[in-house]
Amino acid sequence: MFKRTLLFSLLLLLFGAAPALAQEGASSGPSAGDVMFTVNNLWIMLAGMLVFIMHLGFASLESGLTQSKNTVNILFKNSMIICIGILTYALCGFNIMYPGDFNGVLSLAAVPDFITVAKDSADLTAAYNPGYTWYADFFFQAMFAATAATIVSGAVAGRIKLSSFLIFSALFLAISYPITGAWKWGGGWLDGLGFYDFAGSTIVHSVGGWGALVMAALLGPRLGKYKDGKVNAIPGSNMTLAAIGVFLLWFGWFGFNGGSVLSADPALVSLVLVTTSMAAAAGGLTTGLVSWTFDEGPDLSMALNGILAGLVGITAGADQMAVWEAVVIGAVAGALVYFSVIFIDQTLKVDDPVGAISVHLVCGIWGTLAVGLFGDLAGVAQIGYQLAGIAAMGAFTVVFCLIVGGTLKATLGLRVDGREEIKGLDVGEHSMHAYPDFAINGDGYLEESEEATLQEV
Amino acid sequence: MFKRTLLFSLLLLLFGAAPALAQEGASSGPSAGDVMFTVNNLWIMLAGMLVFIMHLGFASLESGLTQSKNTVNILFKNSMIICIGILTYALCGFNIMYPGDFNGVLSLAAVPDFITVAKDSADLTAAYNPGYTWYADFFFQAMFAATAATIVSGAVAGRIKLSSFLIFSALFLAISYPITGAWKWGGGWLDGLGFYDFAGSTIVHSVGGWGALVMAALLGPRLGKYKDGKVNAIPGSNMTLAAIGVFLLWFGWFGFNGGSVLSADPALVSLVLVTTSMAAAAGGLTTGLVSWTFDEGPDLSMALNGILAGLVGITAGADQMAVWEAVVIGAVAGALVYFSVIFIDQTLKVDDPVGAISVHLVCGIWGTLAVGLFGDLAGVAQIGYQLAGIAAMGAFTVVFCLIVGGTLKATLGLRVDGREEIKGLDVGEHSMHAYPDFAINGDGYLEESEEATLQEV
Amino acid sequence: MFKRTLLFSLLLLLFGAAPALAQEGASSGPSAGDVMFTVNNLWIMLAGMLVFIMHLGFASLESGLTQSKNTVNILFKNSMIICIGILTYALCGFNIMYPGDFNGVLSLAAVPDFITVAKDSADLTAAYNPGYTWYADFFFQAMFAATAATIVSGAVAGRIKLSSFLIFSALFLAISYPITGAWKWGGGWLDGLGFYDFAGSTIVHSVGGWGALVMAALLGPRLGKYKDGKVNAIPGSNMTLAAIGVFLLWFGWFGFNGGSVLSADPALVSLVLVTTSMAAAAGGLTTGLVSWTFDEGPDLSMALNGILAGLVGITAGADQMAVWEAVVIGAVAGALVYFSVIFIDQTLKVDDPVGAISVHLVCGIWGTLAVGLFGDLAGVAQIGYQLAGIAAMGAFTVVFCLIVGGTLKATLGLRVDGREEIKGLDVGEHSMHAYPDFAINGDGYLEESEEATLQEV
Repeated sequence: MFKRTLLFSLLLLLFGAAPALAQEGASSGPSAGDVMFTVNNLWIMLAGMLVFIMHLGFASLESGLTQSKNTVNILFKNSMIICIGILTYALCGFNIMYPGDFNGVLSLAAVPDFITVAKDSADLTAAYNPGYTWYADFFFQAMFAATAATIVSGAVAGRIKLSSFLIFSALFLAISYPITGAWKWGGGWLDGLGFYDFAGSTIVHSVGGWGALVMAALLGPRLGKYKDGKVNAIPGSNMTLAAIGVFLLWFGWFGFNGGSVLSADPALVSLVLVTTSMAAAAGGLTTGLVSWTFDEGPDLSMALNGILAGLVGITAGADQMAVWEAVVIGAVAGALVYFSVIFIDQTLKVDDPVGAISVHLVCGIWGTLAVGLFGDLAGVAQIGYQLAGIAAMGAFTVVFCLIVGGTLKATLGLRVDGREEIKGLDVGEHSMHAYPDFAINGDGYLEESEEATLQEV
Repeated sequence: MFKRTLLFSLLLLLFGAAPALAQEGASSGPSAGDVMFTVNNLWIMLAGMLVFIMHLGFASLESGLTQSKNTVNILFKNSMIICIGILTYALCGFNIMYPGDFNGVLSLAAVPDFITVAKDSADLTAAYNPGYTWYADFFFQAMFAATAATIVSGAVAGRIKLSSFLIFSALFLAISYPITGAWKWGGGWLDGLGFYDFAGSTIVHSVGGWGALVMAALLGPRLGKYKDGKVNAIPGSNMTLAAIGVFLLWFGWFGFNGGSVLSADPALVSLVLVTTSMAAAAGGLTTGLVSWTFDEGPDLSMALNGILAGLVGITAGADQMAVWEAVVIGAVAGALVYFSVIFIDQTLKVDDPVGAISVHLVCGIWGTLAVGLFGDLAGVAQIGYQLAGIAAMGAFTVVFCLIVGGTLKATLGLRVDGREEIKGLDVGEHSMHAYPDFAINGDGYLEESEEATLQEV
Repeated sequence: MFKRTLLFSLLLLLFGAAPALAQEGASSGPSAGDVMFTVNNLWIMLAGMLVFIMHLGFASLESGLTQSKNTVNILFKNSMIICIGILTYALCGFNIMYPGDFNGVLSLAAVPDFITVAKDSADLTAAYNPGYTWYADFFFQAMFAATAATIVSGAVAGRIKLSSFLIFSALFLAISYPITGAWKWGGGWLDGLGFYDFAGSTIVHSVGGWGALVMAALLGPRLGKYKDGKVNAIPGSNMTLAAIGVFLLWFGWFGFNGGSVLSADPALVSLVLVTTSMAAAAGGLTTGLVSWTFDEGPDLSMALNGILAGLVGITAGADQMAVWEAVVIGAVAGALVYFSVIFIDQTLKVDDPVGAISVHLVCGIWGTLAVGLFGDLAGVAQIGYQLAGIAAMGAFTVVFCLIVGGTLKATLGLRVDGREEIKGLDVGEHSMHAYPDFAINGDGYLEESEEATLQEV
């Protein structure tokens, strides 16, 4: 941190960087092109940091919307997902997803590149990309990638075996997410077709949502969730945590969507921040009002999911929409998420403790379709491209998850044992309590009703 | 997010943007002016994100300093305020507040503009403003606006009817805040007079504080707060949440004050960050020491409010003060907030569960006056301008809140019913608990003393 | 915030700033050099904000890993440390640490400078430093400084007297940290020798860790921690808080390490963000797996400390390492922290409630040594320089802490009285509870076993 470091690096920059863009004499200072590269790269790095903080948002939301006896398990899962996500994305995900820029679809051959990459190579100048260095690109994309597995995490909370979940996540992040991602963002066939997905309503959210659906269905519901034909609500243990999670996710989404401009372009990034915020606000307000109409008082967890629904909905077309279109997309997403949560919970009887399938799959599909209905690309042909993308990525992801999830189920097992589930995964998997100082209602022993539940299993 | 998007937008920028500022051949890259616009706009967008996170800060602080039986209600209110705030600011607040840049004081005529605004218009270049695009301007200002209603939220916690509060907030944000704001920041009569309020000690904080005072007075105290001539403390339920809230508010204030420079000007923004931090530190330390002197041990909630007091105090003149002046302003605010909390609680007997009136109204007035006492503008005439601004905005806001609050009181009613208040607004308004897994002291039934309280009402 | 402010400041910037770097006609707009200065300064300011939020991270982590009866005390300590840290760093710390830029080692003579510093001086242009203004420099460095005292805070939690701790912190920050820091970052003898510590594995972390070790040893263990030859675990009260803390620390570390580049240099900053993230991920995963192997299920608090271990480990050489080297350094740190926690707890019998000594001292030393083992500087001579720096800073810090801590112990006393410790410092020092609404296990009276513990003391 000593100032000589700076002088050295500035000199390097002033005299060495991006000569192709330089228009002034090399001896007199940086060119405007050098500085624009520095600004663009700064924004992409900041956007990566914002996407990073979404992982805290997901961890908080999931902990808040589930029972306190599974909190340590959830926090451990979410901490490991970001660690595993970054490491596997470095190992192969990044190379699979962006084969054009790298070397080949499976590209394990690229590993040595990663290891030895020279710090003064062209990959660190505007010659790599006018918006960012190779490192900033990786940093931003790796933070993105890990979100897909985190989406699954919420839907399987409270009953999945830790080891099986981590193996699933690693494979999902290392193989499935980057292959479908490459079809569009890697310049693959869906990109050639005309499919549009600005920041990932499908590529990240509905893909994560399909994973959530398959895994939740393979696992089955939590014990006691559906009993004697009744649907029992299992209330979240900590609503302040849930709210903290949603506010952090909204905050992080500024980077998720804003960074997907891939430069600091003032016009586009500022538009994207406004459409993103308008959709979130419209989603939250709509769900709040719908819930106020249909439930016994407005439901906070629904309203929070409404904000997320608006965010997921605008993500595919955040750079394409006028402000009023963003409001409409967000409001529709907010209504959709309300009815979808009820439909999945009560009709499909798929137990999704946090509503991840409704938020990320249903609203991800809606947002992707909305690009064909609103904004600059709207049109019948575009609706077709969007449907093609949704279907293709969905089909691949479902098949992948069925194979991996089914194999795990048949071998290691997907689910913890019933007694462990009722006592909580914190004790069962970690021998810890999340809140040992606090008196927990009915904690520490199997209540009579739980024994009964267990008998029936 | 595919790289072609970037190439396209960069090309657009390189060849199309801000030709008036360009000094090099159009074929060779961006001009330094283009890049400066990009940097300035980036900072304003980031500042808007920081102000956004203040809403999480307010929600955490308010939840932490109040009883756990009202937490769901508080989180719902605060989630809706940001949603409603952004939407109403888009609908009319922005246009009312900045009539010079838009079209007329009431400017509902501007709504179509908002809906159809072309993404490639001059509003998205430095021709709109050298510091930001039209979208970035809206984004930053909308996040600001919503804070004013959030200030009110804390003072009315634990007894206000949800529907009445949301209607009040919407009207306050859509009409009252932008009208008084326009008098200064919209280039109105107070601006012409010489009134100075850099980032809103009065325009945001004392205006929010007046709303808090009027509404808390109209509502009356929480049941059991003042009984048999005694003032009963109702301790906050979660001090970690309160501390999280204050740290997030300080963090967000870097954008609140720093962004109010309206560009990334290195000299001014860095000065503002230092004066802001010094005032916060001096405020927190002073209140901590004062409380240590007068109370049974140093009071954490007082010290946290001392940090906020320092922040509110420096806000009007954060760009005008030397470092030592910021320390003095913060320290005075820290002492003021301590005695003001006690005076309002014990002498005025206005029940303000989080101390919002002391922090935002009292220290907002102090900070606004301080511009006449310290810094580059200090002088007798300036003190007069500052008093005029404080009085005019205060009078308008008080009258507005009395009319709206009084009308609501006479129609929908302002206050929940006594039994609901004692059981908690979470159950009464939302049929939910914030912490259902946790054993709550005296939860789930009316205790004898509560029955007694209820009888007396 | 009125737009004229901006116009004025922009005009100032366009026509007045950094003429030495200007290459275009002064009449036509900013030079590329002006804009680069603006970008660099923006990043340093943002990095300072990120380091600020680490203080919330530390407060959350420490509250989460300790008992709920001491939470108010911890939050008060941590709030005061950042306030005192900023104020003392302004008073003398900054001048002691960077004597070359200022005036002399003890430099209390610099106080008037601080008070009167002119806002339009050369200190606010690139003439001060091409990367930042004087104010941005102070802002970033002050946020850094306060972290050193916060490290100590965790190790002494649950038994230290508040007044003694705050006096210790003020002296540590005002004198000890800046003197050792000056030896390297201030251009002192260790810098001349060849010692390298990019962002402070030693200058911040091991120095804070030595303070933690000395103070924890002087204090002795919490009552009941070591009894009848047995080591009793005292579980942390709130694991979600602990996880929030670690995620915020990782987030803040992007500024801690990334800002230590001291400019927005795209190549260096983006490399640093990647090495920082890879080391954190490798650390967390390694500790998680090691704990899974040796404990009854993977230990969340260990895994969280593993993330921090990786972050501390990479800090000394984050700008020097290839990606694979960052992974190795982080993984070794993750293993080290696991065995170090056990060794210090069970063999040394030094009671460190949060593992601060293992994370910051042990991994700080490891990270500093790693600069001699990996990366561009690796070599036998460099290992020697690194050992010299570790030893010199360690020796000074240990002696300083022994003198200050010993004096406090002999005068004011370091430790609260036994009954107060068992009842909790929240009641004893603050007459408050952190969670008064919640039923706490065994709260509110001395349990029989606690009485027994107290008898033995």
